[in-house]
Amino acid sequence: MDFDFDPTTLELRERLTTFMETHVYPAERIFEEQLDSSPDSWNPPPIIEDLKEEARRQGLWNLFLPGESGAGLTNLQYAPLCEILGRSPHIAPLATNCAAPDTGNMEVLHMFGTPEQKKEWLDPLLDGSIRSAFAMTEPAVASSDATNVETSIVRDADHYVINGRKWYISGAMDPNARLLIVMGKSDPDADRHRQQSMIIVPRETPGVDIRRGMKVFGYDHRDHGGHAEIVFTDARVPAENMISREGDGFAIAQARLGPGRIHHCMRLIGIAERSLELMVTRASGREAFGKPLADQGVVRDWIAESRVRIEQIRLLTLKAAWLMDTVGNKGAHTEIQAIKIAAPATVEWILDKAVQIHGAGGVSQDFPVAAWFAQVRTLRLADGPDEVHKNALARNEIRKVRSHAGA
Amino acid sequence: MDFDFDPTTLELRERLTTFMETHVYPAERIFEEQLDSSPDSWNPPPIIEDLKEEARRQGLWNLFLPGESGAGLTNLQYAPLCEILGRSPHIAPLATNCAAPDTGNMEVLHMFGTPEQKKEWLDPLLDGSIRSAFAMTEPAVASSDATNVETSIVRDADHYVINGRKWYISGAMDPNARLLIVMGKSDPDADRHRQQSMIIVPRETPGVDIRRGMKVFGYDHRDHGGHAEIVFTDARVPAENMISREGDGFAIAQARLGPGRIHHCMRLIGIAERSLELMVTRASGREAFGKPLADQGVVRDWIAESRVRIEQIRLLTLKAAWLMDTVGNKGAHTEIQAIKIAAPATVEWILDKAVQIHGAGGVSQDFPVAAWFAQVRTLRLADGPDEVHKNALARNEIRKVRSHAGA
Amino acid sequence: MDFDFDPTTLELRERLTTFMETHVYPAERIFEEQLDSSPDSWNPPPIIEDLKEEARRQGLWNLFLPGESGAGLTNLQYAPLCEILGRSPHIAPLATNCAAPDTGNMEVLHMFGTPEQKKEWLDPLLDGSIRSAFAMTEPAVASSDATNVETSIVRDADHYVINGRKWYISGAMDPNARLLIVMGKSDPDADRHRQQSMIIVPRETPGVDIRRGMKVFGYDHRDHGGHAEIVFTDARVPAENMISREGDGFAIAQARLGPGRIHHCMRLIGIAERSLELMVTRASGREAFGKPLADQGVVRDWIAESRVRIEQIRLLTLKAAWLMDTVGNKGAHTEIQAIKIAAPATVEWILDKAVQIHGAGGVSQDFPVAAWFAQVRTLRLADGPDEVHKNALARNEIRKVRSHAGA
Amino acid sequence: MDFDFDPTTLELRERLTTFMETHVYPAERIFEEQLDSSPDSWNPPPIIEDLKEEARRQGLWNLFLPGESGAGLTNLQYAPLCEILGRSPHIAPLATNCAAPDTGNMEVLHMFGTPEQKKEWLDPLLDGSIRSAFAMTEPAVASSDATNVETSIVRDADHYVINGRKWYISGAMDPNARLLIVMGKSDPDADRHRQQSMIIVPRETPGVDIRRGMKVFGYDHRDHGGHAEIVFTDARVPAENMISREGDGFAIAQARLGPGRIHHCMRLIGIAERSLELMVTRASGREAFGKPLADQGVVRDWIAESRVRIEQIRLLTLKAAWLMDTVGNKGAHTEIQAIKIAAPATVEWILDKAVQIHGAGGVSQDFPVAAWFAQVRTLRLADGPDEVHKNALARNEIRKVRSHAGA
Repeated sequence: MDFDFDPTTLELRERLTTFMETHVYPAERIFEEQLDSSPDSWNPPPIIEDLKEEARRQGLWNLFLPGESGAGLTNLQYAPLCEILGRSPHIAPLATNCAAPDTGNMEVLHMFGTPEQKKEWLDPLLDGSIRSAFAMTEPAVASSDATNVETSIVRDADHYVINGRKWYISGAMDPNARLLIVMGKSDPDADRHRQQSMIIVPRETPGVDIRRGMKVFGYDHRDHGGHAEIVFTDARVPAENMISREGDGFAIAQARLGPGRIHHCMRLIGIAERSLELMVTRASGREAFGKPLADQGVVRDWIAESRVRIEQIRLLTLKAAWLMDTVGNKGAHTEIQAIKIAAPATVEWILDKAVQIHGAGGVSQDFPVAAWFAQVRTLRLADGPDEVHKNALARNEIRKVRSHAGA
Repeated sequence: MDFDFDPTTLELRERLTTFMETHVYPAERIFEEQLDSSPDSWNPPPIIEDLKEEARRQGLWNLFLPGESGAGLTNLQYAPLCEILGRSPHIAPLATNCAAPDTGNMEVLHMFGTPEQKKEWLDPLLDGSIRSAFAMTEPAVASSDATNVETSIVRDADHYVINGRKWYISGAMDPNARLLIVMGKSDPDADRHRQQSMIIVPRETPGVDIRRGMKVFGYDHRDHGGHAEIVFTDARVPAENMISREGDGFAIAQARLGPGRIHHCMRLIGIAERSLELMVTRASGREAFGKPLADQGVVRDWIAESRVRIEQIRLLTLKAAWLMDTVGNKGAHTEIQAIKIAAPATVEWILDKAVQIHGAGGVSQDFPVAAWFAQVRTLRLADGPDEVHKNALARNEIRKVRSHAGA
Repeated sequence: MDFDFDPTTLELRERLTTFMETHVYPAERIFEEQLDSSPDSWNPPPIIEDLKEEARRQGLWNLFLPGESGAGLTNLQYAPLCEILGRSPHIAPLATNCAAPDTGNMEVLHMFGTPEQKKEWLDPLLDGSIRSAFAMTEPAVASSDATNVETSIVRDADHYVINGRKWYISGAMDPNARLLIVMGKSDPDADRHRQQSMIIVPRETPGVDIRRGMKVFGYDHRDHGGHAEIVFTDARVPAENMISREGDGFAIAQARLGPGRIHHCMRLIGIAERSLELMVTRASGREAFGKPLADQGVVRDWIAESRVRIEQIRLLTLKAAWLMDTVGNKGAHTEIQAIKIAAPATVEWILDKAVQIHGAGGVSQDFPVAAWFAQVRTLRLADGPDEVHKNALARNEIRKVRSHAGA
Repeated sequence: MDFDFDPTTLELRERLTTFMETHVYPAERIFEEQLDSSPDSWNPPPIIEDLKEEARRQGLWNLFLPGESGAGLTNLQYAPLCEILGRSPHIAPLATNCAAPDTGNMEVLHMFGTPEQKKEWLDPLLDGSIRSAFAMTEPAVASSDATNVETSIVRDADHYVINGRKWYISGAMDPNARLLIVMGKSDPDADRHRQQSMIIVPRETPGVDIRRGMKVFGYDHRDHGGHAEIVFTDARVPAENMISREGDGFAIAQARLGPGRIHHCMRLIGIAERSLELMVTRASGREAFGKPLADQGVVRDWIAESRVRIEQIRLLTLKAAWLMDTVGNKGAHTEIQAIKIAAPATVEWILDKAVQIHGAGGVSQDFPVAAWFAQVRTLRLADGPDEVHKNALARNEIRKVRSHAGA
């Protein structure tokens, strides 16, 4: 057992930290100003393109992607880098082409795409010249169970025809999100986990109606493509847009999930670290009743608890990443579930305190903590509410004890 | 001891409930549509004027105001009505002319205004033809201590000249908010609680720059006048705009505070009751893993806890109201502090569960729970963060025990 | 609505407070010394008899019992007195003949006893010359559901024969507990709520084996009769010992329950008030890192939260008492459930803080807070764990919303 | 970074697990019976000696001690073994000569003892033939700050004379605890951290009055030597009993502390794992309202949360152990503080749920969970209350941010 990062990770952490300090943090104010100055645009602020160029130049690009197409890092190596990106969560992931949902989509295309699909869609995604969306969640059913999707994908000669309603399709409001990877039911009569397929639907396809941006506590998130409600009405795409084979949808979703959750959690830890810094900075600079907030007992309690909790979720996330690398996503199942449960709740708690310490400023647009709170809050719901994951984790735990007792 | 409402209250509760069911709830969808259709307006949606007319016609008007100018109710009588208004918090208070900050401002003018001030400002406020704002909070200092205000109010012959910066001035973005009651320092050398004054500043006064709407978790709250940042630069108003006398500002603020907090808390309880209903309705109608959410243990736990907690904060708020009526705001001090501490935290907890049960819909614009969460969250900060009130309450508690021990 | 106590209550509160200050608090040390000096005795320390004499003399006796046999108070009148008794929970209830389980047993005999039963058992109980126990909980089944009891009560000519195992039968280790009221199954084939009976079993009955004292976190509670495990093996009692009629057991249990829970909760509030005083006193007298604990932010937070929470559970308990008086136990069902859920958890929280502030002393025998913690902890289990009550309360809440929606 | 145990650890874990299953768990019932049958004895039950012999024979002995005198393991190697011992916390540590406070005392003598001291005291301790106590905590001062001790150690020719009062001196009630290591003040005028000394006081020394066993929530813990109150009145020991030199007391205490806390935390994790098993087992075997507790949502929530939290504190503890091995106790300071804060609170939470699931049995002597709860609860106080550690940790955190900002 060894808690040191390997040399590759150490070197990349240093370079990435420099990039953050030299380019990303200074860009934050500009990013906000550009956003404010074009209130009706769903494109990311133009400064993002400058940062992408710089990141690409420095080789801080596609860090998330294993293999030759990407930076070739393991999950354990990427995790601490992803944390650093999370410190400026609206900018750094975009700037380094490491932003969801593109990361997951690139992984899917990388693992399951045909050479033609890769050429048409993966290459420009890797290149950062287009974006993408992943259309799974539906308003009418509990999204926690992928087998619930009701959108239909029906073969019609050499095409597939798609009908259904999706919402909270992140990134899809960005006009540059050229493709949607749509999860739907292709065979309602197949086995429960073989009914679903995933298919590539180009944005311009007739019958694809991107209706409106869903909000998150009042935020439209147009800085990273928003969250679209999309209605598919007889949307027709060539049969070769199918990813892998009919019926593989559930398996692909599972494969996409593990790394996705790890990334979310690592970014959360970055948010938490930055929030703790903001908390301490504000508490140090603000007086109330004759002494700095940072000298007041309750504030110190929050600061200490934040540190104690951050250390715990970071280690748990790193261990999950290590398990994914060593025994695979399946072997890491419990740990992945555990961080999915622990990290959002923990970081939400920290952000609540960060808001409180900032006073009215804490809920405002002048500090990032309210926006981060809202974002983190959604992760207790996204990809299944906590309660579903706890129930599943408990079932396993019970099974383990019983089988041991029976042995 | 008797927990029954008196006949006046019972009768008004019934009439108000009918008004809610007949006019307010059905107006909610229209209200949202009108809001959406005029995205750049800071005026409340036009349906509000229809509702005001109806409420005035039914005598459900100015219920908050004791004495002949208003409905003449005690705090204890108004409290349960205010709770009912809180069930549709963005509409019902406006519709019945019982919305903050106008209520507090009307109370101030009613208690401390000159006949001229009353004629010019109170009458149209009572009438519902104009609105108002209360400018106290400043970005640069801890707003929890009213003696901290830095805005200056300086006598210059028969005028006062105002300089300073305020923010989160609720309602002030509404162009119909014709007057601002501004709290500032008129004599920095006076005793600590005699340095402040309150003065009426008409919106149009040169030197009043209403800069921007502050946000609350992404919401601009333009449906009820937003929260303005206002800069006063040599804003000059006639000396007769002073409310009461120079140096009375702190005392007026205190007088305004007690009822204001009670109203906030009662509205919160209305929000909580409605949220619990939404929670139960959603849980009853939504299945996951083969049974309705409402049959799942964790959800039931939340529902039960919500009920148990609501009952407690309601009783505490009613008792505080009763104390204000019987022994005055000062005698009710501890209880007012206690509900200020307990109610927002409790209702926030309930709303968190309501969000969770609604899934992605819970954070969206399609259900009110995320917006209510954000609103309630601010009340852990507004008018002093919880921690300040807890500290003060504890100090009292310690003093009580010590003096008893010393006796 | 009126939060004032009536004159009878006010007068009794004053007299009872004087009795506490003059007799009970000074007796606490003696009580402990007497306990320590007879480590193997299950009798209460002798000072209790002195206190009983004094209480009887002052008319502070059987305050819990409505009607002519007792003090004739309503639940609402008794509640604040019971709170005062709770301030010295191991002494004051015994001293005033207001201790569980005797109170509930006297109520049962008072309501359902035959003249002979009253003469033989109720009179000496009212008199304070004997004690009693209530044998319901069984180790083998979930005690939260009274219909689960497995102990059998079988008619055999003019006797009943009892077989079964009970545990946590409070008070039964005291040799002066002359009678046990035993709940058992008399007719397993009857309707679910008509299978149970309650019967009086004199302590000396052959076949009654009082096996051992069950502990509560290491405490044997021999100061108030412990908690016995009792095995009944063909214990035979005359048929006239049946309380009311065969099959009435469940109904009697329900009738006994409401007041019992109120009493527990009021006592808890007394414990909480006293604990808060101890907390403040200790925090005022103890320095750490250069200033009194009472000046430290986290400690103040605990003190304030304690006050805020106590006020809430007190009001809820009083309202439940008022409802019992005005609309009956059934009408007060939700409120009784609510305090059963809220009060133990709240007071446990307060006691945890009281322990913490006392340092090592907090877990020791030198301060009462650890013992109170243990006692309060059991009330989250006794008479059904919280979770059962929450589940039932939620079911009601769901039914209410649905029926309203359907109306 | 690598989360695998090394081969030595893996092999020892296997052997230790076998020892637990073959000898320790089966001994638990006998241990309890022997305890019950000698209610006045402060000696551990005789079965402990049998187990010690077996453990010694198997080489599962002094695992905690680095270097040649012990098993020679690093902290990181010992941690997971210590966790296993914690699964039977009243037996396994004693059985393997790895019980506090002997472990810490052996470390002190090992590091700082003279050859004579080692021969007289360390050898029989290593051998398991005697036990020891560590006398630091005093009733009169906050024990969280070692510089507070008031007990005096005064040189008188070739002796030292000790006066003072200590309490909660764990293990000292065991007559076989032949020596006390006493912390006291030898020079009140020296620098703050040079005033203290540690000295060996043989149990038989005249003037050593072992007064009484302090309790922990009603438990006397006589199975592992209780917690003594000890009064020293002119207790006189030879000057060569001084450990290291006069004034080294504080430094020795610090050196003793790091490993001690790690051991406590690892044992806690063992307790938590066993409690979770007990919880699951009970929940699987007990029905309520028609289905096993293990199928009820709230119970599952507890089980899942328990697992998620255990994983986090384990990783944090292992990391702290690794830091101690690699950068020393000082470098591991924050992490040691963090587990000291996190582990007791977490495991207390788990035990609360374990108690609840066991119903009345949960607070009884028939299941271990109440006793463990009490024991764990003390660790939020022992060696400084949580609040002190949080305050210190926060101060560091604030310093870090400030120095970074200033850089």
